[in-house]
Amino acid sequence: MIKFVYAFTEGNKDMKELLGGKGANLAEMTSIGLPVPRGFTVTTEACNKYYEDGKIISEEVTNQIFEKISELEQVSGKKMGDSHNPLLVSVRSGSRASMPGMMDTVLNLGLNDEVAKGFCEATNNPRFVYDSYRRFIQMFADVVKGYEKSSFERILDKYKETKGITQDLDLTADDMNEVTIKFKEIYKELSGEEFPQDPKTQLIEAVTAVFRSWNNERAIIYRRMHDIPSSWGTAVNIQEMVYGNRGDNCGTGVAFTRNPATGENKLYGEYLINAQGEDVVAGIRTPQPISTLEEIMPDIYRQFEENAKKLELHYKDMQDMEFTIEDGKLFMLQTRNGKRTAAAAIKIAVDMLNEGMITKEEALLKVDPKQLDQLLHPAFDEETLKRTKAIAQGLAASPGAATGKIYFNAQDVSEAAARGEETLLVRLETSPEDIQGMNDALGILTMRGGMTSHAAVVARGMGRCCVSGCGELTINEEMKTLTTRDGIVYREGDYLSLDGSTGMVYGQQIKTVPPTISGDFESFMKMADDFRTLGVRANADTPKDALQAIQFGAEGIGLCRTEHMFFAEDRIFPMRQMITANTKEEREAALDKLLPIQRTDFEEIFKVMKNLPVTIRYLDPPLHEFLPHTDEEIQDLANSLGITFEVLKKRVEDAKEINPMMGHRGCRLSITYPEIAVMQTRAVIEAAINVNRGGLNVKPEIMIPLVGDVKELEYTKKIVVETADKIIKESNINLEYSVGTMMEVPRAVLVADEIAKEAEFFSFGTNDLTQMAYGFSRDDASKFLEDYYKKGVFDSDPFEKLDQKGVGKLVDIAVKLGRSARPDLKLGICGEHGGEPTSVEFFHNVGLDYVSCSPFRVPIARLAAAQAALKSGTR
Amino acid sequence: MIKFVYAFTEGNKDMKELLGGKGANLAEMTSIGLPVPRGFTVTTEACNKYYEDGKIISEEVTNQIFEKISELEQVSGKKMGDSHNPLLVSVRSGSRASMPGMMDTVLNLGLNDEVAKGFCEATNNPRFVYDSYRRFIQMFADVVKGYEKSSFERILDKYKETKGITQDLDLTADDMNEVTIKFKEIYKELSGEEFPQDPKTQLIEAVTAVFRSWNNERAIIYRRMHDIPSSWGTAVNIQEMVYGNRGDNCGTGVAFTRNPATGENKLYGEYLINAQGEDVVAGIRTPQPISTLEEIMPDIYRQFEENAKKLELHYKDMQDMEFTIEDGKLFMLQTRNGKRTAAAAIKIAVDMLNEGMITKEEALLKVDPKQLDQLLHPAFDEETLKRTKAIAQGLAASPGAATGKIYFNAQDVSEAAARGEETLLVRLETSPEDIQGMNDALGILTMRGGMTSHAAVVARGMGRCCVSGCGELTINEEMKTLTTRDGIVYREGDYLSLDGSTGMVYGQQIKTVPPTISGDFESFMKMADDFRTLGVRANADTPKDALQAIQFGAEGIGLCRTEHMFFAEDRIFPMRQMITANTKEEREAALDKLLPIQRTDFEEIFKVMKNLPVTIRYLDPPLHEFLPHTDEEIQDLANSLGITFEVLKKRVEDAKEINPMMGHRGCRLSITYPEIAVMQTRAVIEAAINVNRGGLNVKPEIMIPLVGDVKELEYTKKIVVETADKIIKESNINLEYSVGTMMEVPRAVLVADEIAKEAEFFSFGTNDLTQMAYGFSRDDASKFLEDYYKKGVFDSDPFEKLDQKGVGKLVDIAVKLGRSARPDLKLGICGEHGGEPTSVEFFHNVGLDYVSCSPFRVPIARLAAAQAALKSGTR
Repeated sequence: MIKFVYAFTEGNKDMKELLGGKGANLAEMTSIGLPVPRGFTVTTEACNKYYEDGKIISEEVTNQIFEKISELEQVSGKKMGDSHNPLLVSVRSGSRASMPGMMDTVLNLGLNDEVAKGFCEATNNPRFVYDSYRRFIQMFADVVKGYEKSSFERILDKYKETKGITQDLDLTADDMNEVTIKFKEIYKELSGEEFPQDPKTQLIEAVTAVFRSWNNERAIIYRRMHDIPSSWGTAVNIQEMVYGNRGDNCGTGVAFTRNPATGENKLYGEYLINAQGEDVVAGIRTPQPISTLEEIMPDIYRQFEENAKKLELHYKDMQDMEFTIEDGKLFMLQTRNGKRTAAAAIKIAVDMLNEGMITKEEALLKVDPKQLDQLLHPAFDEETLKRTKAIAQGLAASPGAATGKIYFNAQDVSEAAARGEETLLVRLETSPEDIQGMNDALGILTMRGGMTSHAAVVARGMGRCCVSGCGELTINEEMKTLTTRDGIVYREGDYLSLDGSTGMVYGQQIKTVPPTISGDFESFMKMADDFRTLGVRANADTPKDALQAIQFGAEGIGLCRTEHMFFAEDRIFPMRQMITANTKEEREAALDKLLPIQRTDFEEIFKVMKNLPVTIRYLDPPLHEFLPHTDEEIQDLANSLGITFEVLKKRVEDAKEINPMMGHRGCRLSITYPEIAVMQTRAVIEAAINVNRGGLNVKPEIMIPLVGDVKELEYTKKIVVETADKIIKESNINLEYSVGTMMEVPRAVLVADEIAKEAEFFSFGTNDLTQMAYGFSRDDASKFLEDYYKKGVFDSDPFEKLDQKGVGKLVDIAVKLGRSARPDLKLGICGEHGGEPTSVEFFHNVGLDYVSCSPFRVPIARLAAAQAALKSGTR
Repeated sequence: MIKFVYAFTEGNKDMKELLGGKGANLAEMTSIGLPVPRGFTVTTEACNKYYEDGKIISEEVTNQIFEKISELEQVSGKKMGDSHNPLLVSVRSGSRASMPGMMDTVLNLGLNDEVAKGFCEATNNPRFVYDSYRRFIQMFADVVKGYEKSSFERILDKYKETKGITQDLDLTADDMNEVTIKFKEIYKELSGEEFPQDPKTQLIEAVTAVFRSWNNERAIIYRRMHDIPSSWGTAVNIQEMVYGNRGDNCGTGVAFTRNPATGENKLYGEYLINAQGEDVVAGIRTPQPISTLEEIMPDIYRQFEENAKKLELHYKDMQDMEFTIEDGKLFMLQTRNGKRTAAAAIKIAVDMLNEGMITKEEALLKVDPKQLDQLLHPAFDEETLKRTKAIAQGLAASPGAATGKIYFNAQDVSEAAARGEETLLVRLETSPEDIQGMNDALGILTMRGGMTSHAAVVARGMGRCCVSGCGELTINEEMKTLTTRDGIVYREGDYLSLDGSTGMVYGQQIKTVPPTISGDFESFMKMADDFRTLGVRANADTPKDALQAIQFGAEGIGLCRTEHMFFAEDRIFPMRQMITANTKEEREAALDKLLPIQRTDFEEIFKVMKNLPVTIRYLDPPLHEFLPHTDEEIQDLANSLGITFEVLKKRVEDAKEINPMMGHRGCRLSITYPEIAVMQTRAVIEAAINVNRGGLNVKPEIMIPLVGDVKELEYTKKIVVETADKIIKESNINLEYSVGTMMEVPRAVLVADEIAKEAEFFSFGTNDLTQMAYGFSRDDASKFLEDYYKKGVFDSDPFEKLDQKGVGKLVDIAVKLGRSARPDLKLGICGEHGGEPTSVEFFHNVGLDYVSCSPFRVPIARLAAAQAALKSGTR
């Protein structure tokens, strides 16, 4: 018999796979003696079994659940359905990783009409009982049945209106009873059935709902964003209720052991007196800072502080805790490693290292490399900021600066973002339904909710800038307006700017400045460099990009795309002349005009990079990408070229391809038009000679793209070498250069040993390799990949995160074959995966010499490489 | 020291790689005692060295050549440049395989003004000497220097005109001397230099020309057509001259040991009295049938017959021989296995087997499977033929029937063929320059030249129908007219029909009938079936194709493409309705209309195939292929669908993809629209149930295309199995079916073990696999691949002939991984390579169960599979 249910006394923190994060930590807290309400966890295996069994909870699992309920009844002396001493429980989902997309919590489960009546008598607190009951009905209807929360909220609002009440706290026991009755009515209206009275039915329905929620759309989107496999499943935690809503010596709150936004080593959190769980994060009432608890309940505060310290030392990490105070007694309801901003993550890691709590290795492993992205985005220009008056201030919920057009719901944001707009999401408060829009927006602004509100937590996780709880502004979501205290109205599409580090909101666009690496961040990155063995270069096509790359710690340029140099206004004309040339002579004449331009580009890049290596990729895209598309542009070009519109139009049409991705591009261009390779070689070699005459010692790396057969490389390399050697000989100076190739065509991988005989280095082009290995056109696949994610066929986007099983196998084959033919073959990767942490780890393990990614991802790659070295035991 | 030159006495027939075919056979004939003029061969290695050294013949090779010349001088007592007893030689190219595209022959090399004068005195035959000299100048100018032959022919024609002479034979010694002088003048005019007088210079220039000709455009085209690698190189044969032009007891000819058109076991050939080598094949004089030689020179004829028999027995194959008679003495100048038509190849193999000369195995290996293609093309409908009068009769030079528009030069043919026209090439006579046009034409008609003329030989090799030497018709190549004896004029673009088996020419289009397998062909194919172990299926989408497949011996259908069923007029409308549907319901309504159509298609195919296996591939192409493209068609469809033009136009635009080959197609369609897979499964399973109720026992094989990840297959298979099992259960009859997948996406290969757990069979789609492995779009690659062939980057088209090194490695990986996970995995291939002999051999060796190809290539695959089994020792 498989054990599908574990009491908290049976588990520990290392059982996250089976018990989920919440369950494992509840067990751990229990075992280290913290005050945790009793309970048990239904395992993730039970969830997977639920799906295998065709979405049915088997008898076996049901029996095990009710066995544990019996045990709970025995220890607590309470009984499910007993009207005087009822066992009420909370039901919470809890997967291995924290997942806001799933069903979260149902409290007070076990209440029904009879139990409520009896419980009132027993507690002599009917307000508390009906408050609990109405909460239970609403939560059950919402999270178990999926009915709109607003249907219930409307009832409550209307009731309060008729009674002239504004605060929930002002509702009397009778009011609560009335509301409960109305809630049951609306439940019946929505479901066609009475609200279930049998606690066991309630319980199994709630467990089923948790399992079901594992595969709802929001959960799937969240998993995809956070690379969580669908096979993990979720656990369910069932726990005896403790009540924060039983009176004024009760309360509930959440807190972090350190500040999750800045990393400051100080207890940080919020609480509400006489409230139940969700009230704090839901943003309905604005909670109090945790520090004020010290005055109100000094003992509780001291006790909580002790618990927090104990947990942090135990987990060796900053903790995010939930607690409830029932009649002056503190209960710990949850602890987990707290989500934090990148800045906080780094400060915490460095501080804990300095405090002697953790080692350097542990410090490095404590920061998610992906998260560094937050620190690598622009901030507002300080000079501009000085001259700009904010229109409002809210909470600095998630740092960063964002400027964009405002939209009032998630869908509008997503649509605008798809059109290419930079957007901000403005909401009264956010909910899990908004997750896609929050991801698509550059920043989030809410009117309600604190530092731990949904908006704040999710935004920090995503690295989005967020200002929350900005009550100074008035929102009308239906009319799509945002009004300041001064009566200024902002509408959909207007620009705002948000500073998530100060909470300031500005009524205009504000210039941003690029980020820099300094302070803790700098020392942390230096420590990472000490541990990593994988080189990190950047993809950079311009001197500006190259400079940025160096500032972010790149050790060279792994990919300098030469085609981007030709799209500029002043350069595209000779490029077009070259492409539309009818004869070799015409083509050479156009190339002669391009030569000095390209040579200057290279000289400038070489100068910026000093003597760091620079890999220059020869012309790669299909030539027709450079041609004009509209008739007007064609006419203009025809005039300039001195040919007729019809002739040029035909050439443009002839150049079109059915599948340009697999068409006339890469080294295929040099085979058809060797004079292009001649020109590019002259530009590279002459530029290197010129800067070396100026005192540098540049050794250019020339990279031939899209090679699939060694003969393609041989042919092109011959042109390069003949041209280069002639120039070098004439220059009378010594210049070393190397010639290598991209590994981006699957066939190249299969004959990598042959190719390595000609190539001095390989650089994996994992974008194209992914396209061709899957047969997915990047330009077209996003449409149908949406269906893949929805239907669970794919968990993640193989263009974002390297497909290690398939494409990774190709990389591995090429590494082995290549090194077998040329042991000192230099191996790198310059696809977009070069800055994605799991992919970087793979590239480290497979034995590449370096990764190359966009300048802004260089620090991510540096940290990921250090972590890979630590994990693999290379360091 | 490498030996670059071999005397004929030093080689043998097995040294073709080094000595080329001609050289090896000259050595062999020498060693078995046949009368061969003395000589030696410069090796293919010398040719490769020539290219490695930058197109220079090294001193080393030159020295070795002149050493052998010295030896020749010693044995013959003649001396190069000696004016009384000069050593004159022929220089001929000779690669491993016979290659008409290369420089062929220079005769009489060693003549110069002084030698000629002395030689006249020595032979007392100045006519012979100057005839030889003027031939030498012309040949040297043409084949060594590349000057137009016509420049010389014009001079000769003009000279004859002024003298009132029509035949070359009527030219006197003085005339020949005059012509020689004029030839030297024109040579000087063309080259700016005197005709080279130094025999050694002449020799080295001629050898260089042979090496150079290895890489001329015609040779490259020929190599590509015949899959000859460019790395082979050519040898050069240098041989003491014997003279067929020394008088009336001299002559020269070519002959086959058996009839190369029909296979009849009878000496077959032609000769000319008092002529030199090229005269016979050049078609300048019409030669005599070899049988007439028996009357004129009975001894020589008997001797030749004996030599022929000896050679055939020695080589165990039909021989193609050249001979020269000098002053009543017979010399053998060449022998090689003769080219023959497919019909002749089969008859010769079957006859030699029956004669006891060869074994069954040898007989099977004697026929080139590719050549069978000739027998698998239509012939003229006999009934129509009876009612049709020919306009002329020529020689039945290469069998087959062809009807098409006439063009008067090779380029016009190629251009018309590129436009999609069916063409015939009509020429006075053909030359190596015409090779591309001959390949592009369906048939060839020449006015001059015999059965061994260039046109006849090349056409037979290509399997093109050819009528040669049709002197009844008068051609004007400049005016592009062809005139019959009755004065009827045919012009460019008019239709003619050619019967290469009878030599008849018809002045109109004639209906053709499909070929059948009978007689020797049938028994030969049965013998092949006895030896092969690889199954052969056909790709067939219609009952008609299926019937043809069975007639050609297919053992099942390996690929039934379901999409082709939807392009017919009556079916495309519901298909378009389905594609443009906005909702699942609309889509299902359209699919409901398609279901009965598709079910009927499958029923009919199942009935034709009886119980042979049928693999049905689900919808594969991008859906927009089915949509209308012109505005008019879109308007029509919009009307029918009851939507506006604008709405439909937008849907059509939205459906377009940038790289459709890697877009929304294959199983990706079923993942987005599962209802398509449901409909197709219903159609397949219901059809099978219906025909099985009628007494058959069909077990459909359902094939899911374009799978790259096992989850794609899992998802789609689940739909198939659920739908199928439900229908089968309801039908109350037992139906077995299997579900498999294509292996056509590189990634699928890499995870073939995972996929094999779900798939009961794999069918390799080597077309797509080649596209994605190379990143070559089939639709676009032909443009730039032309440059690849020209520049020697590729030798053959990877879409025609499987790239064994790269794509083949993928096949091998998938076979091994697939069988490791499922030992009884059924493995086939249904790409176009399934009917290409070298690829079939690869598929046999890699362990596939079957190949599947177009019905017309099934016999080719059957023979190729038998040969593969024989070669690998499997049988």
